[in-house]
This record gives sequence, C-alpha cells and structure tokens, in this order.
Amino acid sequence: MTWGVDNLPYGVFSGPGERPRVGVRYEDKVLDLAPALHDEVFAAPSLNPFMARGRAAWHDTRTLIRNKLTGDLSVTERHLIPLDQVRLHLPFEVADYVDFYCSIDHASNIGKILRPGSEPLQPNWRHLPVGYHGRSGTVVVSGTPIRRPQGQLGQGRFGPCQKLDIEAELGFVVGVPTELGSPAGAFEDHVFGVTLVNDWSARDIQAWEYVPLGPFLGKSFATSVSPWVTPLEALPRVPGRAQAPQPPAYLRRQGDWGLDIAMEVLLNGETVSRPPYSGMYWTPDQMLAHMTVNGASLRTGDLFASGTVSGPERDERGSLMELTWNGTDPIKLSGGETRAFLQDGDTVTIRATAGGLTLGEVSGTIG
Amino acid sequence: MTWGVDNLPYGVFSGPGERPRVGVRYEDKVLDLAPALHDEVFAAPSLNPFMARGRAAWHDTRTLIRNKLTGDLSVTERHLIPLDQVRLHLPFEVADYVDFYCSIDHASNIGKILRPGSEPLQPNWRHLPVGYHGRSGTVVVSGTPIRRPQGQLGQGRFGPCQKLDIEAELGFVVGVPTELGSPAGAFEDHVFGVTLVNDWSARDIQAWEYVPLGPFLGKSFATSVSPWVTPLEALPRVPGRAQAPQPPAYLRRQGDWGLDIAMEVLLNGETVSRPPYSGMYWTPDQMLAHMTVNGASLRTGDLFASGTVSGPERDERGSLMELTWNGTDPIKLSGGETRAFLQDGDTVTIRATAGGLTLGEVSGTIG
Repeated sequence: MTWGVDNLPYGVFSGPGERPRVGVRYEDKVLDLAPALHDEVFAAPSLNPFMARGRAAWHDTRTLIRNKLTGDLSVTERHLIPLDQVRLHLPFEVADYVDFYCSIDHASNIGKILRPGSEPLQPNWRHLPVGYHGRSGTVVVSGTPIRRPQGQLGQGRFGPCQKLDIEAELGFVVGVPTELGSPAGAFEDHVFGVTLVNDWSARDIQAWEYVPLGPFLGKSFATSVSPWVTPLEALPRVPGRAQAPQPPAYLRRQGDWGLDIAMEVLLNGETVSRPPYSGMYWTPDQMLAHMTVNGASLRTGDLFASGTVSGPERDERGSLMELTWNGTDPIKLSGGETRAFLQDGDTVTIRATAGGLTLGEVSGTIG
Repeated sequence: MTWGVDNLPYGVFSGPGERPRVGVRYEDKVLDLAPALHDEVFAAPSLNPFMARGRAAWHDTRTLIRNKLTGDLSVTERHLIPLDQVRLHLPFEVADYVDFYCSIDHASNIGKILRPGSEPLQPNWRHLPVGYHGRSGTVVVSGTPIRRPQGQLGQGRFGPCQKLDIEAELGFVVGVPTELGSPAGAFEDHVFGVTLVNDWSARDIQAWEYVPLGPFLGKSFATSVSPWVTPLEALPRVPGRAQAPQPPAYLRRQGDWGLDIAMEVLLNGETVSRPPYSGMYWTPDQMLAHMTVNGASLRTGDLFASGTVSGPERDERGSLMELTWNGTDPIKLSGGETRAFLQDGDTVTIRATAGGLTLGEVSGTIG
C-alpha cells in the first residue's frame, strides 16, 4: 500500500480554524499525533521540536505509530482525519538552506550548454560537492503559487523573467544540531528525513548576476518543498555511484547512502522527465561532511538539497534548461504545444517513489 | 559624549544567572528596557519583536528613552546597570544573511589580484549590487572565539586554512518584513539599524571552491557582528557616491543613504586600516531594492552586509588580502612582526564612528 505503515511521513496540518500541528500520513488520512501519542511535542506548528530529539526518539516514535496503526484501531481511529478536511503547511521551520550540485550528468549538461567546446566539469567538481547558500525565508510548501520574478535579464534589460525553469531535487532535513567548530558526526545521527524540492530558477537573471559570487536573485524568489518529510529510516539504500578520483578522507562514504528513488517531473500533467536519484555522484553523507568540515554548525531545520537530479538520458534530465538545451530544442506536449521555459499558468509537479513507498509530490503553478 | 543620548544603540544583555533581555547602551551602562519602559517586548532575548513594530514605534521609543535619560534620573537610575556587570549576546535572531560587494575599490582590488591584466570589474558590477546568501546560523556576537577552519585548500590539499582573512563591513538589520511577491517599499520603513560585521574569510578554501556557485565554506565558519545595533535614525547621512552608468529605475536612490561612517581595523591593537564607508558605490537603499525586486520576501532579523569596505588608498583597505596584496606584501607591525594573513592568537577589532557617535566594535580572536 502506497501510504501504508512502511511509509509514515511527517507533516504539519490544520483543519479550518485550527492551529497547525504535527501529523503522520497514513492512507488518505493524517494521524493527529499530539492526542494520539499523548505527546505535546507534536502540538508545535513545525516538526523542529520533534526532530531535535534525535535518532533514538525518531525510531521509537515510528515504532509506536506503526504499532498503533497495525493494532486495535478503535482507539486510534478518532485521531485519523481525512486529508480532504485539512490544509498542509510548511512542515519545518527552515534554518539555513544549502543547495548542492551533485549530479554529474546535470553539471556536465550545464557545462556543455554554457561553455561549449571546453571541459564541461570545472576543475573542483570531482573533488568536492560544490554548493552554496540559498534563501531560507522563501522556502514554501507545495501548492504555493509561484510569482514570475522580475529583474535584470542582461545589460540594460529589465523585466519579467523569460527563462523560468525548475530544478527537481531531493532535500535533506537536519534534526540534531552541532556546536560551532565541530564537524558533524554520523549522517543518520543528524539527518531526520527527506523532502522533494523544486528549486525554481530564473535562468536569464542568474546568467547575468552570478559572476563571481554565485546565484542570488535567480533563485531566491521561491523554493518549493513537499508537505511530507519521509524519515530516513524508511528509505531503500543502495551503494553510491563509483567515484574517481577517490575523495579526501573527510569525504569517504559512511555506508550505502545512495538512495533508490525514482523521480518524475510533470508539466501540466504530462510526464516530461524521469530523473533517477540513485545515479547521483555525491551522496548525502558526503554533502553533510563537506558542509561542516570547516566547523560550520548545524541547526535543527537546516535543509540541504542535492541540486538538480539528472540521469544520462535525455528524458532523465531534471531541468527545462537541460531538457530543451537552453530553449533551443523545446519539448513537445500533447495537443501540439511546446515549451522552451515555463509560461504563466503552467503547473509543475515533481513526484517520487522509493521501492513500494511514495515521497508524495511538490507542485506549483506560475502566475 | 560618545555613548550619549544622541547614540542609544540597542543590544541584548544579561547579568549572571539572568535571562537575556533587551537594553540600550548609555555611557558605560545599559538601560534595562522592559522595567524602565514597562514594556514586555523588551523582555525577549532578541531585538526581533521590537524591530517588527515598525518605524513609528522605533522613533517613539527612542524619544521616550531620550526623555527618561535627560529628565529626572531618580526613577530611571535603578534600571541603569554597569556594563561590567553584564554579558552581551547576539542582539537579534538572524533570519537570512546576505552579503553584498558594494565597494568599487574593493571589487577592483580583488579583480586586479585574481585576474591581473584584465578589466578588474566584471561586466555586471556597475549595473547591479552583486550579492549572495551566507550562513545565518554561524553569525556570532563580538568576542566569540574564531576557530581556524579546515578544508580543501586546492586540489589534493587538505588542512587548516593558511590564508585566514577578515572583511570589515557594515550590516543592515531588517525590522519590518514583506510578503512573498512584493518588493520592499521605502528603505527606512524596513531597516531598523546597523551593526559592524567581520566577515571572516578563508581565502584558500574560497579560491578552490567558488566556481561556479560562489563562496561557501570559505565564509560559512563564522561571521562576527557587534553587540550594539545603532538605529538608522541616529546616523549622519550624506549623498551616495556618483554612479555611471545610471542604474535602472528600480535601483534609483531613495535619498541620501550614503553614510558618513569612519571605520578602523586593528590587528592586535595596532591600527592597520581606516576604511571610509562614505565612498561605497552602492548605497543600502539600493541593496534592499535589489534584494527584493524579484519578489523575495523579507523577514524580521534579515541581515544584509555591505561587503568589504575599502577606500582608494592602501591604508583604507578592509581586508588583509588587499592590504598585503594576497600575501605578497605583508604588513609591518610594531616590534618587527609582519602579517600576510592571520596567525593563531591574533585579535582583530573593527571600530567605527559616525560624526560624534560610536558604533562600538566587533572583535574576535583566532584560536
């Protein structure tokens, strides 16, 4: 069963006139955790207080919920609320937001598009997971309308973005913080779970602004995340992609943190891409180790995303920039429509499954 | 008088065993605002709730405090606590942290150092205030020890940073938020005040990592701010530096937001530079307009910094990278000592004055 007891992602919900609080999705319902588990940590309007409790508590809580849902439902039933009676909110309070660039196929495609004829990957790319900080205050929950940004599109050109794009990504949510000056320990001791991320991108704004300090307004107008955070414990793990050269000691993999997640990008309901997460070059344990090797501290609610997930095939690319080769080769939709970049009214939905589980979806409409 | 009634910066303090709360500095004392003004907004451990009240409240509160301090002190006196009996904390909860690159002398120096023989300024530099997001979770208050970061210093080179540097900057603190999708209004309706910022920088880590997504671990290990936030209202304003070409309409200046602030950088107590803030190319009203033109929302506690403040003269440069020309021309200290970059045990202090006011200082010791 797709949203069954092997899944059990966490989110924040409210009924009409109610205060937002933490729940777990089960089938087409949400389990109201504070009364169901008699634990006020779930009465908070975000997952942060619960995530701060740490790995043992995450595991015990998951076991408890699973037992309640597989045992006598007569008591628990009253705390199961049909999804169509609630609204879903941003599931966690975002502390810092970091975006990586971990797909070798994505980075190679971008290199080929922007610097044709030269080596697609920059000299540092195979030695460290390249990343940067994004704007945490504009991370929004799936369903939030996405306003087309305006800005400088080049020298002397100001107006609405003409190259509005998506990036299909996986996001990792930090539960357990660290002290300033101390690199993070084991990946699974800090990271609570995953969300789907659409890192909306204004390619024209980005191209003009990004030298030398990186993306800024081309990204900061909105980043959408899925309403459900799937616990790390639920995810099927596979070995990470082979790496050459061998990364330095602090980036040695901590185990099999390649994740067998199949993503799907839909534009106005039509599937336009199926990016495979398992082919990512840098694994999330390496992202976390890199992000903290300089002593930068973690906070509960930190979000770090993988960067665009792209596979080697054309129909596995996680951005329109790659799918349409910077707009030069538009994709064909049914009814004779084509798209180079997003038009007003377009809806983009990113879905993902992991074995028999679903990670749900993150969706947004331009306008 | 330096810390007199024309200054009155806000901070967060506590005595031994007490909860941190908001105060105003007056002479060598701090006025405990919650009891002095009978207003619980000042019992919070950060300036954020007060800053969210907006410009009219900021002005009225300042007037009220000034009246209390210039009137009959017999009532107020009991709420004035000697500074040496309190500890100062991070004065506000940092939401997003953005760092700009607004000094034309700084940007030109960096261009000459890193790309000798080519045009020092990138093509976009005179058209927009270049900026990027930094890590808000590692913004610390003056006095916090700064651990030398480790990381990749180049291909195959891992270890402690060998080019640890400072950047003397001015930071602007946002009080009044905006909604997603709506650019900010008038500068003085949103920005509450200023802090001094030392944007510690690991030049070797930064040089290897920053292509193409900008600075990341070279900056994220620590950013220090002064404990006192000086209200915008207190600062002497001057016209901004002339700009050519004329920036686009959304970047037209809103008034005289050049600030007549004289900065001073001290290394182990010796003055090594005196950067003049008034010569900055992009003014803070332009930074705010740029940061939000794409619809990115503001939150109370957002911090945006000017980037390194450098003047045209050698002894006006705000970073060691410029002062020592990337380490090739070390500065000479008394007793025959020299410095290319920072050594363990070094203390850097950045001070600033604005007319008869002081903005205090931000200080940190490596170790």
